[in-house]
Amino acid sequence: MITVKARAVDGPDKGFRAAEIKRRDLDAQDVLIEIKYAGICHSDIHIAHGDWGEVTYPLVPGHEIAGVVTDVGQEVTKYKVGDRVGVGCMVDSCGECVNCSKDEEQYCLKGHVPTYAGVDKYGEPTQGGYSTHIVVTEEFVVSIPDNLPLDAAAPLLCAGITTYSPLNHWEAGPGKKIAVVGMGGLGHMAVKIAHAMGAEVTVLSQSLKKKEDGLAFGAHHYYATSDPETFTKLAGSFDLIINTVSANIDINAYFSLLALDGTLVNVGAPAEPLSVNVFTLIPHRRSFAGSMIGGIRETQEMLDFCAAHDIMPNIEVISADQIDKAYERVLASDVKYRFVIDTSTM
Amino acid sequence: MITVKARAVDGPDKGFRAAEIKRRDLDAQDVLIEIKYAGICHSDIHIAHGDWGEVTYPLVPGHEIAGVVTDVGQEVTKYKVGDRVGVGCMVDSCGECVNCSKDEEQYCLKGHVPTYAGVDKYGEPTQGGYSTHIVVTEEFVVSIPDNLPLDAAAPLLCAGITTYSPLNHWEAGPGKKIAVVGMGGLGHMAVKIAHAMGAEVTVLSQSLKKKEDGLAFGAHHYYATSDPETFTKLAGSFDLIINTVSANIDINAYFSLLALDGTLVNVGAPAEPLSVNVFTLIPHRRSFAGSMIGGIRETQEMLDFCAAHDIMPNIEVISADQIDKAYERVLASDVKYRFVIDTSTM
Repeated sequence: MITVKARAVDGPDKGFRAAEIKRRDLDAQDVLIEIKYAGICHSDIHIAHGDWGEVTYPLVPGHEIAGVVTDVGQEVTKYKVGDRVGVGCMVDSCGECVNCSKDEEQYCLKGHVPTYAGVDKYGEPTQGGYSTHIVVTEEFVVSIPDNLPLDAAAPLLCAGITTYSPLNHWEAGPGKKIAVVGMGGLGHMAVKIAHAMGAEVTVLSQSLKKKEDGLAFGAHHYYATSDPETFTKLAGSFDLIINTVSANIDINAYFSLLALDGTLVNVGAPAEPLSVNVFTLIPHRRSFAGSMIGGIRETQEMLDFCAAHDIMPNIEVISADQIDKAYERVLASDVKYRFVIDTSTM
Repeated sequence: MITVKARAVDGPDKGFRAAEIKRRDLDAQDVLIEIKYAGICHSDIHIAHGDWGEVTYPLVPGHEIAGVVTDVGQEVTKYKVGDRVGVGCMVDSCGECVNCSKDEEQYCLKGHVPTYAGVDKYGEPTQGGYSTHIVVTEEFVVSIPDNLPLDAAAPLLCAGITTYSPLNHWEAGPGKKIAVVGMGGLGHMAVKIAHAMGAEVTVLSQSLKKKEDGLAFGAHHYYATSDPETFTKLAGSFDLIINTVSANIDINAYFSLLALDGTLVNVGAPAEPLSVNVFTLIPHRRSFAGSMIGGIRETQEMLDFCAAHDIMPNIEVISADQIDKAYERVLASDVKYRFVIDTSTM
C-alpha cells in the first residue's frame, strides 16, 4: 500500500480538506498512475453532496483523470512506465456478463465499479482523481494520444465520452440534424464532437449569452429556450437531441422538436422524475432515451477521434485549494467550460 | 351525396341512436364501400366520451372497417366493384410532406385526416365505420386477402396495424425477447403477430386469468404484474416491450425489465402524463417510445402477413343496438377480444 495526497470531503455540507489516502499495491494487471490533472464534473458535486443517495465519507471525487504511468504489475501488457494515460468513470466490471462481453462495461449487469464512491473487488471503497496517484487494472486505463495535452484531455474521460457515446450510437453524421440542450461542460463537448462528425448542430440554451462561443465550437444555429418562439419555429426539426441539463425542464416541449423517429437522449440525470406526455411521443414515433458514459473500447475510440479532429474542451486550470470555489461556480453556471485541478498543487 | 344508415352518439354521456348521415359523391379517385363489419376500438370510447379533447357531435365512430367495393370514381385503378377492402384510422393526408413521401402517412406533418372526428378536404366532418357505407380516396383503401373473413379482418385495421407496426419497426423476430403488456384487443394481436415473426413472447397481464388464451395465441411465457416477483425475476430481460395499456401504470417498473438498448413502446395513450425516472432509462441505454398505427403501405403488408400466417383476432360479433352494452363491457375488460358490429343490423 502506498499513501498519497488527496483532497477529501467529510460530509454533504463540508468543504474540501487536504487528506492522505491509501492506494493498493499493484496486482499483476494493475497500473500505477501519477495523476497530473483531474476534471471537475457536475456529478462530483451531486455525489459529494449526497444528492444521488448515501455515500461513505471521507470521499475523494474525480473521474476525469489524466496522468502518466509510473509503475506496472508483472502481467501488464498494454502500458509501460512513461505512457500518457487516462481513467474515466469506472475502474472495473465483472468482465463476463452479456454487456461486458459487448464492450459496454458501463452497463455491466453486476454493476461496474465507479472510480469513486464505489467498492472495489477487495471490498474497499474507491477514491477518485482529486489525488496524486491512482491504481487501476489495465483494462480500465485508456491511452491519451500525444497531441492531446493532459490538462485538456482530462474532461474527455467523462464529458467527452458521455456526449460522444450517444452521438455515435444514434449515428450523428452528415445529413443529421442534432440539437444540444445546455451549453455547459457536457454541452460544449457535444457541440464540438457532433460538428466533427459532420452533423448540422443547433444549440438550445436558456439564453443567448454563450452564442458566440457556441458558434465558435461548431454550432450552425443557436436558440434561446427562454423564447417560446424557439419551440414553434423548430417543431419537428431534429433527428437527435442530446439533453445535458439535469434540471427538471419541460421535457415534452423538447420532444415536440423531434422529427419522425427522432430520439431525445438524456445524459443529465434529474433527481426528480420527469412528467412525460405520451401524446407527444406517439405522433412521430419519437423516443426518449438515457445514456451513460461509454465502454472502454469506445472511450479509446473517442480519444482517438478527438485527437484526429483536434477537439479539446475549453478549460480553466485551478489549484487544489480552489475546489470549493470551483464547485460554487459550477453550480452558478459560471465556468467556461470545465474546471481542471492541477494535482501538483495537492 | 348519398344518405346512409349509421349509429351516432350525441354527447359525451349519451348512448348510441340510429342515424342517417351523408356520404359525398364519388370523386375521380374515390371508392364507395359497402361496410360489412366495423370493429369497436377502445379509442372509439375515449373519443365518443370526449376524453381526448373536444369533438363535434353527432359522432359516428369506427375505424376498423371491412367491406366490399360497390362503386368507383372514374380514375380509380387499384380497386373494382366487388373487391374486398378495408379502411383503418385515416382516410387522407397531404401526400406531399417528408413523412407522407416515406409512406408514413399516419405521421403526416399537416396531420392525417382521421376516419372519424376529423375534417376532410372539403371541410366536412368525417364520420366513421358504424355505418353501412363510406367513401374513401383509393390511396387510403387496403385490400383484404381472400382467406381473411371480413368480420375478423375488421380489427386488423387498427388493433392489427397498431401492434404490427412497432413490432416491425423495432425488428421483432428470431432471437428477440418481446413482452406484451395487457391482453386486450391490442395485446392479443401483439402476441399473435410477434409469435408469427419468430420472437420469444411474454405476456405481462394484471392477473393470470387469460393465461390459457395467451399461451394458445402463441405466448411462450405469461406473468401476472400484480405479483411483485414478476419484476424481480424478469429484470433486464426484454429487447422490446409493447405496452397496450392506456391506464397510468408505474412505467418505471416496466423500464427495469428492458435489456441493454431495449425499448418500451407505448401504443396506448394515457390521458395523464407519466412520471418517468430518468435513472431507470440511463443504466442500460433504454428507450421509451410512442407509436401510432402504421402507414398505408405497411397496413397492406400487415394484412398480407396475417393472411400468410393465418392470424386473426378473436372476435365477438354484435348487432348495432348492442354498441352501448359493448362499450360497457370493453371498459370492464369483459371482451374476448374484440367486438365487431355486423353493419347489416344498422
